Amino acid sequence: MSVNAQSLDLDVPGYMKEVGDRAKAAARETGRAESRLKNSALRAIADTIEVSAEHLLDENRKDLQSGEQHDLDAALLDRLELNPSRIADMAEGLRQIAVLEDPVGSVSDLHYRPSGIQVGRMRVPLGVIGIIYESRPNVTVDAAGLCLKAGNAAILRGGSEAIHSNQALAACIHEGLYAAGMTRDAVQVVKTVDRMAVGELLRMKGMVDVIVPRGGKGLIERVSKDSLVPVIKHLHGVCHVYIDDDADPGKADRIAYNAKTQRYGTCNTMETLLVAEGISGRVLPGLAAQYREAGVELRGCERTRQLLGDIKAASPDDWDTEYLAPILSVRIVDDLDGAIDHIARHGSQHTDVIVTEDLGKARRFLREVDSSSVMVNASSRFADGFEYGLGAEIGISTDKLHARGPVGLEGLTTQKYIVLGDGHIRA
Amino acid sequence: MSVNAQSLDLDVPGYMKEVGDRAKAAARETGRAESRLKNSALRAIADTIEVSAEHLLDENRKDLQSGEQHDLDAALLDRLELNPSRIADMAEGLRQIAVLEDPVGSVSDLHYRPSGIQVGRMRVPLGVIGIIYESRPNVTVDAAGLCLKAGNAAILRGGSEAIHSNQALAACIHEGLYAAGMTRDAVQVVKTVDRMAVGELLRMKGMVDVIVPRGGKGLIERVSKDSLVPVIKHLHGVCHVYIDDDADPGKADRIAYNAKTQRYGTCNTMETLLVAEGISGRVLPGLAAQYREAGVELRGCERTRQLLGDIKAASPDDWDTEYLAPILSVRIVDDLDGAIDHIARHGSQHTDVIVTEDLGKARRFLREVDSSSVMVNASSRFADGFEYGLGAEIGISTDKLHARGPVGLEGLTTQKYIVLGDGHIRA
Repeated sequence: MSVNAQSLDLDVPGYMKEVGDRAKAAARETGRAESRLKNSALRAIADTIEVSAEHLLDENRKDLQSGEQHDLDAALLDRLELNPSRIADMAEGLRQIAVLEDPVGSVSDLHYRPSGIQVGRMRVPLGVIGIIYESRPNVTVDAAGLCLKAGNAAILRGGSEAIHSNQALAACIHEGLYAAGMTRDAVQVVKTVDRMAVGELLRMKGMVDVIVPRGGKGLIERVSKDSLVPVIKHLHGVCHVYIDDDADPGKADRIAYNAKTQRYGTCNTMETLLVAEGISGRVLPGLAAQYREAGVELRGCERTRQLLGDIKAASPDDWDTEYLAPILSVRIVDDLDGAIDHIARHGSQHTDVIVTEDLGKARRFLREVDSSSVMVNASSRFADGFEYGLGAEIGISTDKLHARGPVGLEGLTTQKYIVLGDGHIRA
Repeated sequence: MSVNAQSLDLDVPGYMKEVGDRAKAAARETGRAESRLKNSALRAIADTIEVSAEHLLDENRKDLQSGEQHDLDAALLDRLELNPSRIADMAEGLRQIAVLEDPVGSVSDLHYRPSGIQVGRMRVPLGVIGIIYESRPNVTVDAAGLCLKAGNAAILRGGSEAIHSNQALAACIHEGLYAAGMTRDAVQVVKTVDRMAVGELLRMKGMVDVIVPRGGKGLIERVSKDSLVPVIKHLHGVCHVYIDDDADPGKADRIAYNAKTQRYGTCNTMETLLVAEGISGRVLPGLAAQYREAGVELRGCERTRQLLGDIKAASPDDWDTEYLAPILSVRIVDDLDGAIDHIARHGSQHTDVIVTEDLGKARRFLREVDSSSVMVNASSRFADGFEYGLGAEIGISTDKLHARGPVGLEGLTTQKYIVLGDGHIRA
């Protein structure tokens, strides 16, 4: 199906305009769809994916072969690959979305005003959501499921290296939508690999309500620089754990070790450890030994190096770096104020942790650290939609407007005011 | 004070960079300020404004004289003018903001997760808010008060024609902040009339968290086109009242008359009346007579003209026009679906009303009409922060992301996740 669309003579702006028009029309239908209908579509898509497993693997093989021919690196090929277990996960993910509570239509704060009108807020879909992502084909299914459940129409643009896989998944999605009696236009997967399509999508103000880029920092920076449509994005995570002098050393040890070593490549992994001078002698040598054993390279400030001996000196750049690797920068600070200052200067407003038994200091840290997740005595690795109970997440937003932190179904909706009267007029 | 700053050799980018740096530093202080401190600053500013009334009038007179010399029109001069009652209103407005509940720091949804951590959301300031507005000097005080109460630092850029008034008000604001023991940088009023300052402000991504333009459509379109910083804006209001065939004719009559005639120049005034064909003969002739008496010009669709006789034909443009004047376009539609379609095509997603006694149709209208305020049996003129109980409003947002409809203190804040543990790590 994708072959014709990929032909060089496709009128990309015209095609994208049509995609946008269809999405906008579909959004009216998805917006008013009852939960039951959306859930049955989600389950029908899951079923179709399962029965289409062989075909999906065949199409995915084309992408993998083409990727090998184009010398894609092993990590990228791994992300691109589908296998029976990944296919089962996609279907299972959709069924999990189906059982989540539907946020659409819920009314909050409905109350009477002195004028006699009732005023409340109703949660409603955003409308049309554009998702721009890279090589993982499972994003096609996850994103489609979340957008649909939240009552939105979706325009998905995956990486060109995954075009066969994504088009095969699109066919499954369309079959499921059709089986449930919903319009196929509720989820459109862009059929062309022409990069111009992304540029068009980013300029579709008034047609697309929000763009969610998912992928590496390069993609996200490019999208947010060029987009005329509002963007919900996750830029990077330079997360801190601050061990206060009133910390319980056992908890400090456990949390600082877990926050760095439980996984290295995730955005909520600690990249800088801050330690109050008063407790540094008690906790840092033991932690350093554990990190060394785990193969984590330490880069320290002057005081840290005096304490720990032969570790590398942190350069000024280190404090601003998201390593996503077994590297950790360590700084000894005077006190809580020093830690808050450091985080304000070098943090990425993602996730920051204090370890302390002092309630007053915990209270200050919670209020004054301006990050999407602020934690007391818990590992930064908890910053995650599933751990927070959102059921699923489309990403973690490091922006402040609209959605901050893990973005689940609610982040793909907005609220409108509703007013109920009985002939009320304004005096 | 403003004389030097207005000199032509001011380094505008350097000056604005300094304003931004100061605002960012001030935002950390305003963000952690207790309500008591912010409220005493608001009251001190109100007191200062009252005792400075004579000086404010003197400075305002300079703007008025200069405005007359530059042939500003009467409406603009009226907006520019301060008088004792307007000065008293500004002070009173601040005192009203002081008694509003402080949204900052409130924690919602704090609950235990299966892992043992507690997760909740804390409301926090946005940070630095830039307000760009036109000739009304009272916006300087209103905006400063709302931003401050919500814990933000504000950068205010008023119209060049109000520069003396705004600088005199800035002095009052600074005196009040200082008297309360808060940093003067919490509210900065841009000292130069150089337009380059606006361009700089709109590019201060990472320094300014949101821009709120207030004024005419031209200003707002310019700001949102050029801004790299997210914008909360109100573009225009093409509001509809739909009289359903199951409407109570008395209520329909009252609401349709009030929605148009209570005030012509406001964004929540009805611009198009939609009437179901089945009831048009019963309600339209009477309404038309009342409108005629009030001096409202009607422009009708073909069916309306057949019914009402000699009224002007509505052109295709009329359906998309915000008149802000005693003009009303009238269209007879087949039914609810026709009304919803018309609104989807021509509305501005501001405020739309259905008049009906039928619960099923009210329910559909509330859910399916995608506007910031959707009403049943009430005048569109109720779409207002005060009527909704927000206490005050910085504007009405016709955007979908972040803030929709009247924007009060809550719209000037965001929510972050907080996590409380007791040494919890991720398994």
